[in-house]
Amino acid sequence: MKKLFYLFVFVTTSVVFSQTDKQDSTQIKKFYNASLLNGKSYQWLTHLTQDIGGRLSGSANAQKAVEWGKNELEKLGLNKVWLQPVMVPHWERGTKEEAYIVTKKGRVTAPICALGGSVATKGRNGLMAEVIEVQSVKEVEALGEKVRGKIVFYNRPMQADLIRTFRAYGGAVGQRFNGARVAGKHGAVGAIVRSMNLRLDDYPHTGVMSYGDTPDAQKIPTAAISTLASERLHKELQVNPNTRFYFKQSCKTFPDAPSFNVIGELTGSTFPDEYIVVGGHLDSWDLAEGAQDDGAGIVQSMEVLRLFKETGYRPKRSIRVVLFMNEENGSRGGKEYARIAEEKKENHIVALESDAGGFTPRGFGFNCNDVNYAQILKWKPLFEPYLIHVFARGGGGSDVGHLNTDDNVIFGLQPDSQRYFDFHHTAIDKLDAVNKRELELGAATMASMLYLFDKYGIK
Amino acid sequence: MKKLFYLFVFVTTSVVFSQTDKQDSTQIKKFYNASLLNGKSYQWLTHLTQDIGGRLSGSANAQKAVEWGKNELEKLGLNKVWLQPVMVPHWERGTKEEAYIVTKKGRVTAPICALGGSVATKGRNGLMAEVIEVQSVKEVEALGEKVRGKIVFYNRPMQADLIRTFRAYGGAVGQRFNGARVAGKHGAVGAIVRSMNLRLDDYPHTGVMSYGDTPDAQKIPTAAISTLASERLHKELQVNPNTRFYFKQSCKTFPDAPSFNVIGELTGSTFPDEYIVVGGHLDSWDLAEGAQDDGAGIVQSMEVLRLFKETGYRPKRSIRVVLFMNEENGSRGGKEYARIAEEKKENHIVALESDAGGFTPRGFGFNCNDVNYAQILKWKPLFEPYLIHVFARGGGGSDVGHLNTDDNVIFGLQPDSQRYFDFHHTAIDKLDAVNKRELELGAATMASMLYLFDKYGIK
Repeated sequence: MKKLFYLFVFVTTSVVFSQTDKQDSTQIKKFYNASLLNGKSYQWLTHLTQDIGGRLSGSANAQKAVEWGKNELEKLGLNKVWLQPVMVPHWERGTKEEAYIVTKKGRVTAPICALGGSVATKGRNGLMAEVIEVQSVKEVEALGEKVRGKIVFYNRPMQADLIRTFRAYGGAVGQRFNGARVAGKHGAVGAIVRSMNLRLDDYPHTGVMSYGDTPDAQKIPTAAISTLASERLHKELQVNPNTRFYFKQSCKTFPDAPSFNVIGELTGSTFPDEYIVVGGHLDSWDLAEGAQDDGAGIVQSMEVLRLFKETGYRPKRSIRVVLFMNEENGSRGGKEYARIAEEKKENHIVALESDAGGFTPRGFGFNCNDVNYAQILKWKPLFEPYLIHVFARGGGGSDVGHLNTDDNVIFGLQPDSQRYFDFHHTAIDKLDAVNKRELELGAATMASMLYLFDKYGIK
Repeated sequence: MKKLFYLFVFVTTSVVFSQTDKQDSTQIKKFYNASLLNGKSYQWLTHLTQDIGGRLSGSANAQKAVEWGKNELEKLGLNKVWLQPVMVPHWERGTKEEAYIVTKKGRVTAPICALGGSVATKGRNGLMAEVIEVQSVKEVEALGEKVRGKIVFYNRPMQADLIRTFRAYGGAVGQRFNGARVAGKHGAVGAIVRSMNLRLDDYPHTGVMSYGDTPDAQKIPTAAISTLASERLHKELQVNPNTRFYFKQSCKTFPDAPSFNVIGELTGSTFPDEYIVVGGHLDSWDLAEGAQDDGAGIVQSMEVLRLFKETGYRPKRSIRVVLFMNEENGSRGGKEYARIAEEKKENHIVALESDAGGFTPRGFGFNCNDVNYAQILKWKPLFEPYLIHVFARGGGGSDVGHLNTDDNVIFGLQPDSQRYFDFHHTAIDKLDAVNKRELELGAATMASMLYLFDKYGIK
């Protein structure tokens, strides 16, 4: 009898599990089919990149993107759409930069671009000085006075043998962020930084830098130079350690400007006070159209809510899409969203960010406790048909990260990362860098995971 | 005592296993580092695509590629390098094709390309006829006489909701291969086929077709038309079912031509009579440079042997790289290699093919028995750090497939497949479609798996 009882329990449980599982796999299949056959993400991305274009915080284009985002979300039939005001930094590149290496045979043009937040070179004639090549800010600290009067050339490449390119980025980006501050402190007159790029090419990669609390008068101009020009400069310095470099840039920081996060909500049917957020950042750098960074994340996040509607899935919990403003040079949008959420005591149980490009999705990185992670791992088999296999610990994103608590789940989409730094913050981050299917697979993958969180909640 | 004995056995086994495992993971790390930091695959691919270019069987370029391949393999310090003669089909496209749709408003140019093996349109004036649109050869069989005097337009799209794009290709390619044969049998005067492409664009995709045993006089010309032109033609036919289409092509089949497989061997130290093959195909279509198809597979296969040499791993078994000739329109090279292997009673225990593009490697598809598959699955954890996760049953490749026996392991590299059919058999299959890192990761992945087969053998 006892044996039979156990058998019964086993069979019942098994059947219940199978049915749930079947329901989930059916719903997930619906998301993928709808995204691949009838998706809207690529059409949105085409408009955002080609009709609006680059949209640096504080720019007219950023404002256009805000209006476009609100308008498109309003068409989706969500329960609420609104703008959340936030003050953002306002920096402009000015006229195109010029630069060259002074070699014994003459000037060799070097493709450069000012780093975001940099000051201009002084006067009409730009800056010319001898170059001192280093691998890190630590090396500059050690050199101290030896950098005085010179242009410090940070030339540490991204580490090509790291499989995950974001780790290689993490290992190299410190020289971009802190390079000018540290070099300036020791009397350097400028800082140029090898582009954060695993390829050798002619595109300089911009990105944010910081002077910390350096007084205005002591700020030195800083720019990224292309990887090929970095190699060239390195070779010249091997032959002639007194090689000089010239650059001129007219960038400028203006007073903070008003802007907005754009928010849409599908209100939950059962637990409306539990919030699930999905988002990317609406701002981009100014050199191109911000297609991979982060137009892709924006349209994927919008597509998640559209897929919920199109497949007829009504969420139990409140699902919000947030188009964050100013991730690139301040994260003011992410901080403000979290501040208001805290102020209103909104219970954010889950937040997902897509800000690693629109390439083929491989999985996610989760910032959560062990119990929630164990639950997530149980869902892994549901994703196998879609070749989604990375369920890593750690991750999240610079916008949703501000929502992190001890109990909730903050996570980020992890697309294939091999090509990302070919485009990141360059003049070639355009629509044609994004593959429609890869973008659509990402959106469906995000919708599927948020569906599971919505249905089962967190622990 | 007994208890202690078991403990001892357990500990010993565990240590032995761990050491082996550590040795393997160390060797695999060496392959990845060498490929990513000091690889030769991309340099080879640059030469093969940009200095040699398209290399259709029987062409002068195909012969150049043979000589280049032999020359490069000879530089690697292998034990043997040789050419294996094989007669191949020789078809030429002739002058560029022309085509247009006759609409009520005038002619609309349609990008087309003759399918490999097609006859030319007759006479100087090309072929003009009314169009009948179908979805399959089966539909043409059912229509029978209704297609007489018409151009049959096969317009079945690849199925976008299939995650693995090769499955979508498999589901659509029948109309390309058999379309003209079946249409001609029922009196059609020409056959045009929607390109095997998941995107909407202006590039026609060529590929092989067959007339079967159709007598020469009854062969009708056939071409691929771009997906955008297919959509346009479809719309015209909705409005006007008598819409006519014009095309002209001057392609021609010549007598079979002499060519070669290029083979290099690292002779095994312990079991020289057990052969492990790695290869891709050296020929390509003529519209572009054959970068993804299959320049990538060629240079990855060559890189496998170079990585063995560079990392100082001396194989126990004989490892052969085979640059197969004529995969695209005849597979004569693959068949001849297998025929000679059979004749010489060479024991081919393992064969790996890379012919699915040089995109980020995701894993492999194995054609083998259960016992070997179980062994392979044990190696899976060794690949986790490299994000290699697909260990599928089934697969192999059209060249190495001829080596298949009941006992051996035939398998194919499975790269990410989302972008592959954007380029396949088109004018844009050029070097810039290949990402250096993705290519290098594929080569290292192949080397790692072949190292394991070499070290442990098969069951």
